[in-house]
Amino acid sequence: MVEVFEEISPADFFYRNRDIAGFTNPSRAIYSTIRELVENSLDACEIHKILPDVYIRLLKESDSSGEPNKYRIRVEDNGSGLPSDIVPLAFGQVLFGSKYKLRQTRGTFGLGGKMAVLYGQITTHSETKIISSNGKSKIFEFHLMMDIKNNKPEILKKETYHNNSKWHGTIIEFLTEADYTRAKAKILEYLKQTAIVAPYANITFVDPKGRFYKFDRFTTTMPRPSIETTPHPHGVDVETIKRLVGITKVKNMKDFMREHFQRVGETTAIKFLDFSKVDQKRNPLDITPEEIVLLVNGMKNYNAFLPPDASCLSPLGEESLKTGIQKEFNPEFIAVHQRKPSAYSGFPFIIEAGVAYGGNIPRTGNILLYRFANKIPLLFDEASDVSWKVIHNMVNWRHYKISADDPLAVFTHICSLKIPYKTVGKEFIADRPEVEREILNAIREVARHLSIYLSRKNFIEKERKRLDIFSKYLPKMASFSTKLAKKEKEPDIMPLLRGLKKYEEQKE
Amino acid sequence: MVEVFEEISPADFFYRNRDIAGFTNPSRAIYSTIRELVENSLDACEIHKILPDVYIRLLKESDSSGEPNKYRIRVEDNGSGLPSDIVPLAFGQVLFGSKYKLRQTRGTFGLGGKMAVLYGQITTHSETKIISSNGKSKIFEFHLMMDIKNNKPEILKKETYHNNSKWHGTIIEFLTEADYTRAKAKILEYLKQTAIVAPYANITFVDPKGRFYKFDRFTTTMPRPSIETTPHPHGVDVETIKRLVGITKVKNMKDFMREHFQRVGETTAIKFLDFSKVDQKRNPLDITPEEIVLLVNGMKNYNAFLPPDASCLSPLGEESLKTGIQKEFNPEFIAVHQRKPSAYSGFPFIIEAGVAYGGNIPRTGNILLYRFANKIPLLFDEASDVSWKVIHNMVNWRHYKISADDPLAVFTHICSLKIPYKTVGKEFIADRPEVEREILNAIREVARHLSIYLSRKNFIEKERKRLDIFSKYLPKMASFSTKLAKKEKEPDIMPLLRGLKKYEEQKE
Repeated sequence: MVEVFEEISPADFFYRNRDIAGFTNPSRAIYSTIRELVENSLDACEIHKILPDVYIRLLKESDSSGEPNKYRIRVEDNGSGLPSDIVPLAFGQVLFGSKYKLRQTRGTFGLGGKMAVLYGQITTHSETKIISSNGKSKIFEFHLMMDIKNNKPEILKKETYHNNSKWHGTIIEFLTEADYTRAKAKILEYLKQTAIVAPYANITFVDPKGRFYKFDRFTTTMPRPSIETTPHPHGVDVETIKRLVGITKVKNMKDFMREHFQRVGETTAIKFLDFSKVDQKRNPLDITPEEIVLLVNGMKNYNAFLPPDASCLSPLGEESLKTGIQKEFNPEFIAVHQRKPSAYSGFPFIIEAGVAYGGNIPRTGNILLYRFANKIPLLFDEASDVSWKVIHNMVNWRHYKISADDPLAVFTHICSLKIPYKTVGKEFIADRPEVEREILNAIREVARHLSIYLSRKNFIEKERKRLDIFSKYLPKMASFSTKLAKKEKEPDIMPLLRGLKKYEEQKE
Repeated sequence: MVEVFEEISPADFFYRNRDIAGFTNPSRAIYSTIRELVENSLDACEIHKILPDVYIRLLKESDSSGEPNKYRIRVEDNGSGLPSDIVPLAFGQVLFGSKYKLRQTRGTFGLGGKMAVLYGQITTHSETKIISSNGKSKIFEFHLMMDIKNNKPEILKKETYHNNSKWHGTIIEFLTEADYTRAKAKILEYLKQTAIVAPYANITFVDPKGRFYKFDRFTTTMPRPSIETTPHPHGVDVETIKRLVGITKVKNMKDFMREHFQRVGETTAIKFLDFSKVDQKRNPLDITPEEIVLLVNGMKNYNAFLPPDASCLSPLGEESLKTGIQKEFNPEFIAVHQRKPSAYSGFPFIIEAGVAYGGNIPRTGNILLYRFANKIPLLFDEASDVSWKVIHNMVNWRHYKISADDPLAVFTHICSLKIPYKTVGKEFIADRPEVEREILNAIREVARHLSIYLSRKNFIEKERKRLDIFSKYLPKMASFSTKLAKKEKEPDIMPLLRGLKKYEEQKE
């Protein structure tokens, strides 16, 4: 028996294994398609501080009524647009993109948009149309297909138009196989949750029946944009050092440390190189493999680095999170909390959590969990997620006098340079101990607030009942006492009742 | 703000995202390293019908005592070896391999061995040594490193030796960072379960303290090897057809269908092409994109194809599974069952299940679950796996009079051309409805057998107690009756007792 060896392209790899990227079947695929394109659109706006307007349209293509069927998907945004030489590669070549930086973005694998295009192509054999402009003089339109075997875009048509209106943004449109009937609930849920987490975005979805789903902007305040950063020494391996040595312009190791790593100043650089037994005057170009290993070991074991800098991150902010929850659930009580930055393996991260009670939150007998990561809602494989673990196995809800029967929703958001996803499909987050601990503490904090609110609510309820009794019986008692004392004029009980009410109002 | 676009190599992609391939931290990485190399070794033996001898050695490299630390891993097998021109690519280039065929193998992504080498390199900056021979005149030794950025092997040294002993196999050795202390339990569990599922293999592991763990061959019967096959029409997309059109040598569509797809003969080909409205005389080279779409749609909707052929699969077989369970747990009862082949999306699969009771199986208050896929034990993320779902949410154990307090272990094995893994790290299997149903039916079958055994056991227990009472009181009754009847000789009660015993034995 002969084994045949072959090389396959990255596009071919993900074509063969599209399941792991969330393109398992026509129902899951249309969900992933919409999700990935919307996330690209939001990224393209936010990085450039543009308030996002995203429009999604799904049209059934053929007349037959069954599912799966062919649908035409179109997603438009008002983002920064793409340079014309980039367009074909950004949508037609796997492992090409702008997401391979140390920067917080929704996309992390640089894969989603291409997988959407790829899935459309392998199910319908039709081309993808992309229109884009950066707001300058020209608009470019491309029609392309992917050469999956060679991981290259094939440009079928290219047009250039005048951009009289100075429009900027990107429009993508293609045919794809989908089972919208089965995917509908998840898609709407995804858009709803995206609106919670991005209340500064306008999102419009026109479904195959022509129904409009509008998620309107609720605030014009955007979170500060994320910024690109240098690696923290704690997360560095041999390969990173080798690459930096290959591109550095500095002439000695002290400057090398200061230039290419975050939180390393003059003093730290000197102390650290001393600790690692690497000469600070040495030229990075001359460094030996053994010295690289010394450096990496040193970086892992040196304890005096400042913690990773989280100022590059773009959390939602407590106000934004609150606005989003308010808008969607109109609950009677909300508490939100942002934890101080923390880090795992040299990657800074920030946990934000919220809890909402009552309002439109249904009583399901379970605590509703809404998970977000770098402003993406996560809808699948909930039970494998670290937040689920925290809520179900680690938080002692009885301690907060909260029961699963309460109309309760918990929200968790992690933002990080690197989200510890366990799958390429970005379904759930690994239970890294550092992340787990922060989520636990954040939830405890908001649970404490809810607990106080509920106690007070209970107390007020009791007081109100007490007051009801007073206002019912006090007049009778007054009248009875008057008769008993053989007086004619009943005493004025209003000041007494007002006093009780005032007492109650003070507490509210 | 300027977005920088760039292309990264597949090696670079998996280097950046090594978490998703199971290389998260030094503890998980050493587990994955051993696992991936052992699986490659077993594949290299089984495809060529060689009884596997696999030897694994882990040596602590440095004198310091903490974890993580540097370890030297060495894995030897007696497999078919690799051609000398293939060796550097097979271990030094991501997305190069022999696993990209329609064939059941342990490896599916062609990634594991390279990720092990890559992780070793980025943590220790040292080379990998590979020695291999196909049993002919020469043995080749390579020392290499990976050029991750360009996804290419760098050969540092190459030696050729005479192969006087006609040895065949592959030896791989490299330095890697590991936390063996934390990984130990999982590694031993992995090897133990591998021995259950491959009782025809000799597996030896020498741990860093020099302890030998030997899992000896228990049978010399190997499962039939898997064979490569052609795709079933139900699983075909546009891309597959395009590729086949590019390589086909046949001159008309009828032959095209017969040649390149399984279960398509003359009659089916004609009927199917009729159904799809594609001319059977048409030359595949002339086929239009529209016709390709017609073909693919036809393949999805044509119901008269024979089901996918499972003869290409290599299940364990009921005997092998039983032997494995027996060897490891020595239980008082085993039932195993192999389901008839089934299919999802055109991929045939076979489910095998077993249940074992008593013996060395501990009472944990939970049913122990052992999951296998293409003869790989799956140890992580159990709660996300389809088998877990079936056992905990779908099987009504009370119906079988089985409780979670029983000393019970359930075994499930799926073999398929394509295992629906949800992660590149091969941790757990998606709940495809077809797969779920087959697992459910298989477990019900073995649970039924166990239920019968347990009822009988209960009955025998009761009978034995009854008999105990008889044998205690019968002599007294005999003696008393004798006295009462004023006779001298007591009657012989033995025939009576023997009669009762016989009755009991019959039932056993």
